[in-house]
Amino acid sequence: MNKTFNYSTMKVGIIGGGQLGKIMAQKAKKMGFHVTILDPTLNCPAAQVSDKQIIGGFHDPEKLAQLVNENDVTTFELEHVDTSILKKMFDEGKNIYPSPYLIELIQDKYKQKELLDKKGIPVPAYKKVDTKACLESFGFPVIQKARKGGYDGKGVVLLKTKDDLSKAIEAESFIEELVDIQKEIAVMVARNIEGEISCYPVVEMLFDERVNICDIVIAPARIEESLRKEIEDISIKCIEALDGVGIFGVELFLTKDNKILVNEIAPRPHNSGHYTIESCLTSQFEQLIRAVTNLPLGSTKLISPSAMVNLLGEEGYNGEPVIEGIHEALEIPGLSFHFYGKKETSPFRKMGHITVLDESLEEALKKAQIAKEILKVKGSVKL
Amino acid sequence: MNKTFNYSTMKVGIIGGGQLGKIMAQKAKKMGFHVTILDPTLNCPAAQVSDKQIIGGFHDPEKLAQLVNENDVTTFELEHVDTSILKKMFDEGKNIYPSPYLIELIQDKYKQKELLDKKGIPVPAYKKVDTKACLESFGFPVIQKARKGGYDGKGVVLLKTKDDLSKAIEAESFIEELVDIQKEIAVMVARNIEGEISCYPVVEMLFDERVNICDIVIAPARIEESLRKEIEDISIKCIEALDGVGIFGVELFLTKDNKILVNEIAPRPHNSGHYTIESCLTSQFEQLIRAVTNLPLGSTKLISPSAMVNLLGEEGYNGEPVIEGIHEALEIPGLSFHFYGKKETSPFRKMGHITVLDESLEEALKKAQIAKEILKVKGSVKL
Repeated sequence: MNKTFNYSTMKVGIIGGGQLGKIMAQKAKKMGFHVTILDPTLNCPAAQVSDKQIIGGFHDPEKLAQLVNENDVTTFELEHVDTSILKKMFDEGKNIYPSPYLIELIQDKYKQKELLDKKGIPVPAYKKVDTKACLESFGFPVIQKARKGGYDGKGVVLLKTKDDLSKAIEAESFIEELVDIQKEIAVMVARNIEGEISCYPVVEMLFDERVNICDIVIAPARIEESLRKEIEDISIKCIEALDGVGIFGVELFLTKDNKILVNEIAPRPHNSGHYTIESCLTSQFEQLIRAVTNLPLGSTKLISPSAMVNLLGEEGYNGEPVIEGIHEALEIPGLSFHFYGKKETSPFRKMGHITVLDESLEEALKKAQIAKEILKVKGSVKL
Repeated sequence: MNKTFNYSTMKVGIIGGGQLGKIMAQKAKKMGFHVTILDPTLNCPAAQVSDKQIIGGFHDPEKLAQLVNENDVTTFELEHVDTSILKKMFDEGKNIYPSPYLIELIQDKYKQKELLDKKGIPVPAYKKVDTKACLESFGFPVIQKARKGGYDGKGVVLLKTKDDLSKAIEAESFIEELVDIQKEIAVMVARNIEGEISCYPVVEMLFDERVNICDIVIAPARIEESLRKEIEDISIKCIEALDGVGIFGVELFLTKDNKILVNEIAPRPHNSGHYTIESCLTSQFEQLIRAVTNLPLGSTKLISPSAMVNLLGEEGYNGEPVIEGIHEALEIPGLSFHFYGKKETSPFRKMGHITVLDESLEEALKKAQIAKEILKVKGSVKL
């Protein structure tokens, strides 16, 4: 691809105005670019730090077209977007990265898995669910996943025994073998318009088991060097297989017998890459802006070990967020505090995060866990 | 001082909307705070990344009062501000940091120098100019400085011989001995509302001699450990002497015989502290926001040596900025590119900067100098 951009007047459009769009916008603004956010919520987090907001939904073809037409490049903070108008405009030569065809593929977790499988990338055993009988093909326990619309643990169900079939997802789905997980692993991979590819450090994700949301990320992962290399190679292979332009979060399982299996891919900045803001020479957010504006990728070097903790809305609260413990938490050396500026909290909603840097990874994790105990996001309404 | 803030609804007002205000705003937004900018220029750099702009000048008491009244805390990106209304509001208990009394003191470089001198801080020999004859008190060569209004080398003149007296500044001024400079040095010092004080690494400033604007900053300074300690101690003493709350750029001379003399103090983020964005655990901009909102100061630890280069408007151009060489410059590993989003360039105007991180300081400097050759900020109008 041979794209010539005028960086002095570069305009970037972002579909989605949550925390990912917010930090993407801040990095684009750092480089002097003009930023417009498309989001249905007036004054969403990203709009607060951008030049312009188009108020509109992610399934509104007119607003999507307006965003693409007004900007030199359009990119995504989320994949749950109507791709039809975007595909048409992409075919007409508009700069939309990652390609809306890729976004569409990724929206369907079954097709995503099938493509990776065909390209020789190791994935857990999986099978499309055409009839209810298919749910029993692998025996029990088994994982059932909705093909579309899932995120943060939603659209995934564990069927422990045949009795759980009543809990099965009704929508289009597939089943997946229940992997014996040693660690959940993630890697951010960037690829720019010219095909330059670059891989971030391998990290470990720890989950809040109540709701299956990743709540702690440790960089770098505590794994052997040989495994690290293999994970990096597989992650890069995934993005090459997808012919992706942008930044991608590759989520993987490391099994108890040290097998590596790709779980799924996010075609955008990813929660597991937040640590890069403070810990890497180039953040995942700036890297995305570079990738989609045909700039060389920045160095992904880890400057310091770190641990990232999500600040999730406390159970039992709604309404305007009320955050407790900031003063005490900010006494922790090397702690960076992010709060997204969402107008409403709800239980387990991602409201902010903190990252702790320390020369010792164990110390970083310990400090991050202390911060997690201190910082509580409550709300103006008690449920 | 005992201030209780509600961090969930914290509103920060910033007087001045240039590059310093812009990055301050981005760091305040990172922490979820609401940010309002006071600046006469619609769509100034800081307003592009903030919630609100009040269009107004820095000498407009009504607009200054509006800013203070609408925000929990008000701070400054520049010191050339009418302080009368601010002093009145400060006395009434409004949160304005640094104190407008301090801003007023610093506006007068003679009073600033006199205070430091009285507190036992080493400064170059100086003398107030009451009559033209005073200009000759130290013989020649001698430096003459305007008491008020100078910045970036403006308001400073070197009188080499008696013949130069015709070039002398007419405004209120003082003279200063011409110091035999080995290096120009700077230190950022932060002090929060509770009096916690924290010092950044000592850095070296290199100047564009055509216009006497600092154009390269090297962190850490290449000096002996004993000198470093002494410079840090003097810098901290300065901010204690001023009873300052906020962040302060202390500019010093290291003489050829290794004497340390304080030149002047900026009561705000400073060009010599831009390297902290990428190179330190807490940037000078976040540190200011912490200091003035009664939060604990962050770690000032240097994560990596670095060199910062200002991108100044090329001579011979005005109008909309046209930047050349971005693609090539961004190929340099460890380079971070900042462009401020000013609508107009002019010769030597600060339009952006780059910071290069490298484990080797010499390598960082070499790469920064290469970037300086590559990146040129021209304009739409050729003069």
